[in-house]
This record gives sequence, C-alpha cells and structure tokens, in this order.
Amino acid sequence: MSKKISIAIDAMGGDNAPEKTIEGIHLFLENNKSKDDFIINIFGKENIIIEKLKKFKINLTQVNIIHTETVVSDEESPMSAVKNSKNTSMWKCIQHQLDGKSNISLSAGNTGVLLVISRMILKMVNEVSKPALAGLWPNQNGMNVVLDLGANIECSDQNLVDFAELGSALFKSLFPNEKPKVALLNVGSEEIKGTEMLKTASKKLKYLSSEDNFIYNGYIEGNNIMTGDSNIIVTDGFTGNVALKTAEGTAKFITKNLKKSLTENFITKLSLIFSYFSLKRFKDKLDPRKYNGAIFLGLNGPVVKSHGGIDSIGFYHSIDLCYKIVKGNLMSEIKKNLEHSRSVKD
Amino acid sequence: MSKKISIAIDAMGGDNAPEKTIEGIHLFLENNKSKDDFIINIFGKENIIIEKLKKFKINLTQVNIIHTETVVSDEESPMSAVKNSKNTSMWKCIQHQLDGKSNISLSAGNTGVLLVISRMILKMVNEVSKPALAGLWPNQNGMNVVLDLGANIECSDQNLVDFAELGSALFKSLFPNEKPKVALLNVGSEEIKGTEMLKTASKKLKYLSSEDNFIYNGYIEGNNIMTGDSNIIVTDGFTGNVALKTAEGTAKFITKNLKKSLTENFITKLSLIFSYFSLKRFKDKLDPRKYNGAIFLGLNGPVVKSHGGIDSIGFYHSIDLCYKIVKGNLMSEIKKNLEHSRSVKD
Repeated sequence: MSKKISIAIDAMGGDNAPEKTIEGIHLFLENNKSKDDFIINIFGKENIIIEKLKKFKINLTQVNIIHTETVVSDEESPMSAVKNSKNTSMWKCIQHQLDGKSNISLSAGNTGVLLVISRMILKMVNEVSKPALAGLWPNQNGMNVVLDLGANIECSDQNLVDFAELGSALFKSLFPNEKPKVALLNVGSEEIKGTEMLKTASKKLKYLSSEDNFIYNGYIEGNNIMTGDSNIIVTDGFTGNVALKTAEGTAKFITKNLKKSLTENFITKLSLIFSYFSLKRFKDKLDPRKYNGAIFLGLNGPVVKSHGGIDSIGFYHSIDLCYKIVKGNLMSEIKKNLEHSRSVKD
Repeated sequence: MSKKISIAIDAMGGDNAPEKTIEGIHLFLENNKSKDDFIINIFGKENIIIEKLKKFKINLTQVNIIHTETVVSDEESPMSAVKNSKNTSMWKCIQHQLDGKSNISLSAGNTGVLLVISRMILKMVNEVSKPALAGLWPNQNGMNVVLDLGANIECSDQNLVDFAELGSALFKSLFPNEKPKVALLNVGSEEIKGTEMLKTASKKLKYLSSEDNFIYNGYIEGNNIMTGDSNIIVTDGFTGNVALKTAEGTAKFITKNLKKSLTENFITKLSLIFSYFSLKRFKDKLDPRKYNGAIFLGLNGPVVKSHGGIDSIGFYHSIDLCYKIVKGNLMSEIKKNLEHSRSVKD
C-alpha cells in the first residue's frame, strides 16, 4: 500500500451520480490544495467520469480512474447483489480496499447492498461480535459519535460493548485531543432502569472504563444526547435509527416554522437584515450536510455510506470524513481498544 | 356520579407543590369562568391548601378539598408504596375515582408509584393486554398522540395493536373533528423492515383499519413523526421514551443556539425589535408546557401524569387536558374501539 491516504470512491452511487459525486471530489481537492498526502480512486464508467472531471476542471495528479461496467441499482436486494454485482463500481471499491490499494471506501449507493458486500468482502475483525453503523451528531461542546444507527435491529449486551469500543476508537481517530466518554442510551439514568440486556452491558462497560480507552458515564436519556457530557452514544440499531431520524425531523420542523415566522410580513423581513449573518452562522452550524456520512465499523477496514440524496457539498464532507478517519489511524485505534478490552476480560 | 366533569387533583405531587399546583388550578378557573360543568377535587394537607387557595383568591364554588395526611415521596419505590401510601394524596385521588366520585385523576408526583397504584386500584379494562402512557406531540397540521412513552419497556404485537386502539380513542375524544390515522414507528417504511413482532402488529393493524375507528397508514420513520400525515404514532415504551426525549433535547439545543445567535451583538438585538411578535408566536407554538401531561390509558378510567418540575402554566394545561378528555367521552370511545377490534377478530 502506498503511504498516501488512499480513498476509493463509488462515483456512480446516489441520486445525482456521477455529477454530484465528482463535484464533491472537486470541492475536496479545492479545499486541500496544500496537501499531497492523499490519492482518490474513482470507480465508474470511464467516459462519463472523464467528462465530469473536465467539466469541473479537475487536475488528474491526485485522482485515479478505475473503469467499471455496471452500477448497483436502488432496487437491488442485498442477497441478489452478492451474485450479480461483481462488476459494479461499489463492489470494485471494496475489492480495491481488500487488495490493500485503498484504505477506505465511500459510496452514496444502496445501503443494504453496501453493508452486505462490505461485510462479505472485507470480513469482520475477529474480536467483534457484530459490525455497526456510526454517525456524527452535534452536541453543545462539539461532536458525538452515535452507534448503531440501523445495521443491527436486535442486539446483545456484548454487541453494545463492542459498539462502545468501536465508537470510541472512531472518536479518537477524528478528535485526537478530546476524551471519549461513553454513555448507554436508556429510558432513565438510574441503575435499575431498562432491559436486563442493557443492565448487563452497563456492568461490562463499567468494568472496561479506563482513561486510555474510554470513560464510561453510565446511562443517558434522549434529552441529554446533545448536552456534550458524553460523546459516544451507544444503542441498538433500532433505537439509534429512530432517535437520529426523530432528531432530524424535529430540527426540520423547528427551522421550517422559524423561517415561516421570520418571513411572515414586511417588518419581520426587515429584521432579517440585522440578523442575517448571525442566522447564517446558526444555520451553518446545524447544516446536516456537515454530518453526512455513516461509518460502517467492525470490518477489516472502514466503509463510509453517504446519504443517497446528498448534494456536492454533503458529498465533499463525507470525503473529508474518509480522509480524517484514515489520517487518525482508525484501524490502529480499534486494535488498541480491542486489545484493552480482551486484556481486562482475561 | 354527578353529571359534572369531576377532576381529582393530587395537590401535593411535584417539585413545587402545592404552590404551583394550586396556582395552576387558579389559572384553569380564570380561563373557564363561563363554564359550570366541572368540579375540582383537591387532595392534600387541608391547612396548606386553604392558605394557597386564599393566596390565589380562589372562589370555592367549583372546588372541593379532601384532606389527606401524607405525600408519596420521590424516593418511594412502587413496591413499597403499595403498602405504605394508602393515606397519601395520590392514593386518595385514585380511590375517589374508583368510587365514582371523580372521572379522572391528575398528579405531578412519583411516576412509577402513580402507574403502579393506578393499575392496582382501577384495574385494567378486560380487553386490553397492557396499559400505556400516551402523550401529545405537535405536528405540521395539529397534534399527534404518541404511545407508549415508557410504561412498557418490552412489548408484544398485541400490545401495539391495543395501543393503536387506545391512542385513536384518546385522539377522537380530544379532536372530535379530525380523523385518527395510525402509524407504527419503524426503521424504514417498506414492508420488509423491522422486527418480526412489528411485522405481525402491522398485519393485524391493516386488518383492523376502518373509517370508524382508525385508518392504518403503515410504518413511519422518526423523521416523519411531525409531518402530520399520521397522528397516532404507536411504538414500544423504550423506543417511544427515547424518541420523545430526543425530540425534546433537539428542540432545546436548537432554540438555545438560536437565542445565542440572535442576541450575540447589538445589531442582532436590534433585529429582535422587528421580529419580536413573530418570534414570540413561534416560541408559544413550541412551548413544551402546552403538551404537559402524559395520559395513562387502558385502565377503568384515565389518569394523567404531569411533569414533576412543571410550573403553574404547565399544570394548568394538564388540568385542561383532563377536562377535555372527560368532555370528549374517552372511556366510551375506548369501549367503541375495543368492540370493533373484537368484532373484526371474531
């Protein structure tokens, strides 16, 4: 493997591919002109990709094009994809990563297929009971890692413990100057609350809590996810998916009503002249495109799933996330955490 | 039972009792001066209650005081309360309701104790597999009923079906001019998504869907809870509790940051002069005190739990909720729904 950070990008996945994916690559290159420590491997139909590269005037020094014939459709089921998708841009990305030619893969394509073929090709890290989908979520002091967001609808206590190890490794790779603080999502903060499965997971996490890997803060309730007291929020895939989407829906509801209120008449529109820049900063802080990209953890290599309907700015942010994950040595952080976890158990 | 709507209020429960509870009663009486179709039964230490009634200049024509010696403490466990709390204001409320002297009970006290003693004293409606805690939640067109919010951490498919019947009966009693539209909270809207338990519940609900009781809209994801396409959101108590609290936390996070943005300098403060009334209406619409009060459904009579730390305005809203529930004939709506449910099964 080259010493450069090597990112495999499925240019054909998502609603507006390859227009938006290539424009996202263009934005990433523009924002990282001073760096020469990365290479981007673009997978997809060569002629269309070259056309788009020309359109966005992309210099070819930091990109490779790998031609692939077909694309995973949105309707493809994971089971049929295992047989039919060997020549797709998505499959070839993951294969490139397995071959050691890329450190990470990124796709905005079919989520179910991406999870299944990533797991099949890259295989799970030996010590991990189940892989998980992790996401970034803003909090009052910075950023949370939340997992699982939907890869596993039903989980055991050991799965949750593994998610804590994987999530705090991801956090350390992204925010090396901050301490990972794990909390288990529950319906109350008292020890007697929740299912037996959660109580067992909580006991195990208390036992594993250490300054080097993560501090375990106990249970957290939904209303405290964004206070910033904890920054790794661990839960099963069903609850995590509902919580994340509920937060998105609530944010949308509030900003929609706020916009309506602030533009309802001439006087309120006038007020916008005075608050424009502050409101823009407020909006920027909450912009969901900044948090675009769910990270599939627990395999022999990370895979990032961008939102399917994302625009070029959102896709740029997920390329940036890939770069930071590799730069922060995620896989070695995972290894360290799992070794600690095993040594405590022994 | 008198033909008047009779509400039993535990004046001693909650953080600021009985000051805030009696002030809440005062607000309710002030806002309903023209009505004489209700009576409020106040349970608690007679001398303190009389003192507070005097303080808020409350006319005694529509209130009864029932003296009780003790109060359920926040530390009391449901199990010990069953033995120890027979002389508390909370217990006497529910007993008053069982005796047919009140139609509904309201308390801001210990939630666990309230649920357990309500269930023990009032007993479950025969046809209901498990009682549930329901709440109101704003949506783009009006209001949702969401249940279960935490009474049952683990649920069966039949529990969820019962929650749909109970929730739509509550909706019909509160909003007689609107149609109840049920949705099951899930991690996707396709039929193949979710646990086997959810799939079975969904099949049963599809079978029960009817113009008279509720229309079943299928699965809903967290981001669509507030769109208003469905208004009865059914889920297990774990997921419902996490979703509701996550929405609360998100709303708080956003409004806090918005406030910070709009007051960060002189210019933005100036803008507030022009947007003051619009922002006030926006804030009023989202005011969580308006939705204060979770309704315990499935017993032989409804019990309402107010938030423990609520102020007098929030407590007023939960008295208003009690009044509307009884006025809207909740128990007869529940009976109708369960009869329909049984007739379809037969």
